[in-house]
Amino acid sequence: MIKVGVLGAKGRVGQAVVAGVKQADDLELVAEIDKGDNLQDLVDAGAEVVVDFTTPGTVMDNLEFCTAHGIHAVVGTTGFDKQRLDKVRDMVAGEKAGNVLIAPNFAISAVLTMEFAKQAARFFDSAEVIEMHHPNKLDAPSGTAIHTAEGIAAARKEAGLGAQPDATDQSLDGARGADVDGIAVHAVRMTGAVAHETVIFGAQGQSLTIKQDSYDRTSFIPGVLVGVRNIKDHKGLTVGLEHFLGI
Amino acid sequence: MIKVGVLGAKGRVGQAVVAGVKQADDLELVAEIDKGDNLQDLVDAGAEVVVDFTTPGTVMDNLEFCTAHGIHAVVGTTGFDKQRLDKVRDMVAGEKAGNVLIAPNFAISAVLTMEFAKQAARFFDSAEVIEMHHPNKLDAPSGTAIHTAEGIAAARKEAGLGAQPDATDQSLDGARGADVDGIAVHAVRMTGAVAHETVIFGAQGQSLTIKQDSYDRTSFIPGVLVGVRNIKDHKGLTVGLEHFLGI
Amino acid sequence: MIKVGVLGAKGRVGQAVVAGVKQADDLELVAEIDKGDNLQDLVDAGAEVVVDFTTPGTVMDNLEFCTAHGIHAVVGTTGFDKQRLDKVRDMVAGEKAGNVLIAPNFAISAVLTMEFAKQAARFFDSAEVIEMHHPNKLDAPSGTAIHTAEGIAAARKEAGLGAQPDATDQSLDGARGADVDGIAVHAVRMTGAVAHETVIFGAQGQSLTIKQDSYDRTSFIPGVLVGVRNIKDHKGLTVGLEHFLGI
Amino acid sequence: MIKVGVLGAKGRVGQAVVAGVKQADDLELVAEIDKGDNLQDLVDAGAEVVVDFTTPGTVMDNLEFCTAHGIHAVVGTTGFDKQRLDKVRDMVAGEKAGNVLIAPNFAISAVLTMEFAKQAARFFDSAEVIEMHHPNKLDAPSGTAIHTAEGIAAARKEAGLGAQPDATDQSLDGARGADVDGIAVHAVRMTGAVAHETVIFGAQGQSLTIKQDSYDRTSFIPGVLVGVRNIKDHKGLTVGLEHFLGI
Repeated sequence: MIKVGVLGAKGRVGQAVVAGVKQADDLELVAEIDKGDNLQDLVDAGAEVVVDFTTPGTVMDNLEFCTAHGIHAVVGTTGFDKQRLDKVRDMVAGEKAGNVLIAPNFAISAVLTMEFAKQAARFFDSAEVIEMHHPNKLDAPSGTAIHTAEGIAAARKEAGLGAQPDATDQSLDGARGADVDGIAVHAVRMTGAVAHETVIFGAQGQSLTIKQDSYDRTSFIPGVLVGVRNIKDHKGLTVGLEHFLGI
Repeated sequence: MIKVGVLGAKGRVGQAVVAGVKQADDLELVAEIDKGDNLQDLVDAGAEVVVDFTTPGTVMDNLEFCTAHGIHAVVGTTGFDKQRLDKVRDMVAGEKAGNVLIAPNFAISAVLTMEFAKQAARFFDSAEVIEMHHPNKLDAPSGTAIHTAEGIAAARKEAGLGAQPDATDQSLDGARGADVDGIAVHAVRMTGAVAHETVIFGAQGQSLTIKQDSYDRTSFIPGVLVGVRNIKDHKGLTVGLEHFLGI
Repeated sequence: MIKVGVLGAKGRVGQAVVAGVKQADDLELVAEIDKGDNLQDLVDAGAEVVVDFTTPGTVMDNLEFCTAHGIHAVVGTTGFDKQRLDKVRDMVAGEKAGNVLIAPNFAISAVLTMEFAKQAARFFDSAEVIEMHHPNKLDAPSGTAIHTAEGIAAARKEAGLGAQPDATDQSLDGARGADVDGIAVHAVRMTGAVAHETVIFGAQGQSLTIKQDSYDRTSFIPGVLVGVRNIKDHKGLTVGLEHFLGI
Repeated sequence: MIKVGVLGAKGRVGQAVVAGVKQADDLELVAEIDKGDNLQDLVDAGAEVVVDFTTPGTVMDNLEFCTAHGIHAVVGTTGFDKQRLDKVRDMVAGEKAGNVLIAPNFAISAVLTMEFAKQAARFFDSAEVIEMHHPNKLDAPSGTAIHTAEGIAAARKEAGLGAQPDATDQSLDGARGADVDGIAVHAVRMTGAVAHETVIFGAQGQSLTIKQDSYDRTSFIPGVLVGVRNIKDHKGLTVGLEHFLGI
């Protein structure tokens, strides 16, 4: 049983984390911390790992305290630029310091899609990305889709693959999608959709499709639990859940 | 048993038609006509219906002969403009004239996709079209995809639906696809692919997807057979297989 | 503007209906009725249509009152057997009686999937149904999937199609799915899934796929609104939303 | 440029290999061997790698000759039991012997699907396999699908995952598929289909789908070329293309 504390426990996301930890047979929820609570409670409760979905304004203090007390931290809070990451690297430098995982995306199906796409890329002539989101999304394509395309492009380059075959010489504007490092990325906006990403690869006589669907806003929980279960084995600072997947 | 003649029987497409007619229990192949053969053979063999996949240079003569002899014609030959269609209308005007079906697309799964898309359109807030073809295709999007989008747009307009919800305000060029009458159309080019079309509709909490895959170049055969079986009941000239589907 | 009353307005489903009616530009919410409220409020508020998601214990009284007062009713409440339907038929018999729509399934994407499947069935050699639900579902396959398969089977029979081609002579038990009137139906149970149904049709060189995804429990709302908007044109009792779709 | 010889060059499969090698910029076709030809031609032509799609009756002699002459072999010929594999191990034992790759499946999209499924399995509560083939297939499910399910089951077991969640207590016979080591496997038979496999994984609020489509009988070519390009780095005998993918 790993003893877990949740920071930001009363927020919408924090409540989902609390529920997720409670449901896991191998985890024990020992502390729920929110505004006004004392971080010392984590130590008193014997927390080994904390999950931090708080705010850019509080997360650095939380990490300072946790790492100093040898408590590992799984962090979904946003706002980490190079400067902040350097500070966290200092925090985790000590031999007895807690480890830290900071990840921009805990949806494990999305992280696996990106990793598998990178692995598969060098075996196929063609690769395109189609993402689908609810129509309230402001940016197109999604950051995840751009990141996926960049990973595919880098893998193709490393494997010595050239430009994708495409004889199109007459096209309606936009039909062939956005060009991200030579990978076409298409963004669909659809009432009822949540967050979905499809990567299609093509080679002679065949295709490989890797597809990820997020159906609701709790889809980050399984990835958080992967972080909680494995963080003690990942010394120092890790950025990105993919490094915890052993693939 | 319907007695069927095939025009252009030695061409690649014609051979597939010959094979398709032979395999059908309710059809009898009575004549295979190609360059140098005499159309009179059709009459002698008692052909009730012909299938014409020939060339723009010969199809009008073929239709002239067949309609005049009361033989119905199912035509996949291209090159029919308004003037030619008017000529065919004259040919089929007589009481004893054969009927004619001219269709640009006999892939029945593609025709049904277009028809169902038109029927579904008015019930959904969002609709987009994604087509996928082999990378040797010159135009993007495909004519079928554009036609599908136009059908959806017309159905939405008729139902009084306005613009689709889309909050995008920051977009990579092309990410949101081509705009066909307000419907986003995305074209994927993929080695190994043949011809595929997906229409996605979205409404609160749900989506409806209609997808069509053509796996090889014989996918027009089932549609041709639908034409052959039903043409005697469709007086005069019909343009488009959809009018034979009873939907 | 159609004036709408909601019965069972405080229940979970009723609240979603209230929200859906409020969001619709062409509908006006004039009454929210729940336990303890007086049905006379509907008349006083000028309700033209009510939506009833209540209980088998109260729905008959509600319909008695509404039909007698010329108010149309869109009903998602369960428990209607032949005897109850006959009683409702009596209620709507009068010239000035309100009309009634009773539907077991208001998810419009699911209803359209069933209807399109029936329309497409006669054009394809093969047809199978795959449904996917969350793992807490007790029955497999879902009632919707069975109903879909029955519709396909009936359409095939009417078109004179025989058994589906299937050379399988060595099979693991269950691999080829459940047999519903000659249509194979496969049930997938998957954590994270909500309710999903896929119908695949195959013919020479091609396939047609019709797929429906329900992402959350509000997916019945668009169908309810279709009911509300059209009920005044459907005299008497209608069972099943499909009769309102004009397809 | 790798110098390649093709054994069984006049067979249907061999012809496709010949065409595939010719199209690859980094490969040079130096010998086409078929019945009646002399294997010594391979040596004379300077072949570094051969591709063998011949028959169980000739493949062992071919391998004996090639390995003895330091020529590597990529083998798609069937019929390798334990005894034969042991003999091949003897052949490749010498320091200067050619290497041998024997693979039951060269469709790289299928091999990747199996590998990714194994990698993903431990992160998801639920996993099922759906395969789809043409209706002339005799066995259900396909060997590939069974093999995929076994890989998933082994990965789940290794990760300490228990039985999949499934509350079904009322089921039509076969609805929940075949049980392969606790993984449900569904087999669809569909006119027009070739060979397709879908693996679906589910976790809280999300799913991951890995799908493979083989559209025609040349889909093994890209995998064969991966074998040809990498065999010199895989000392001795390798069974299974997955070991060449570096994943």
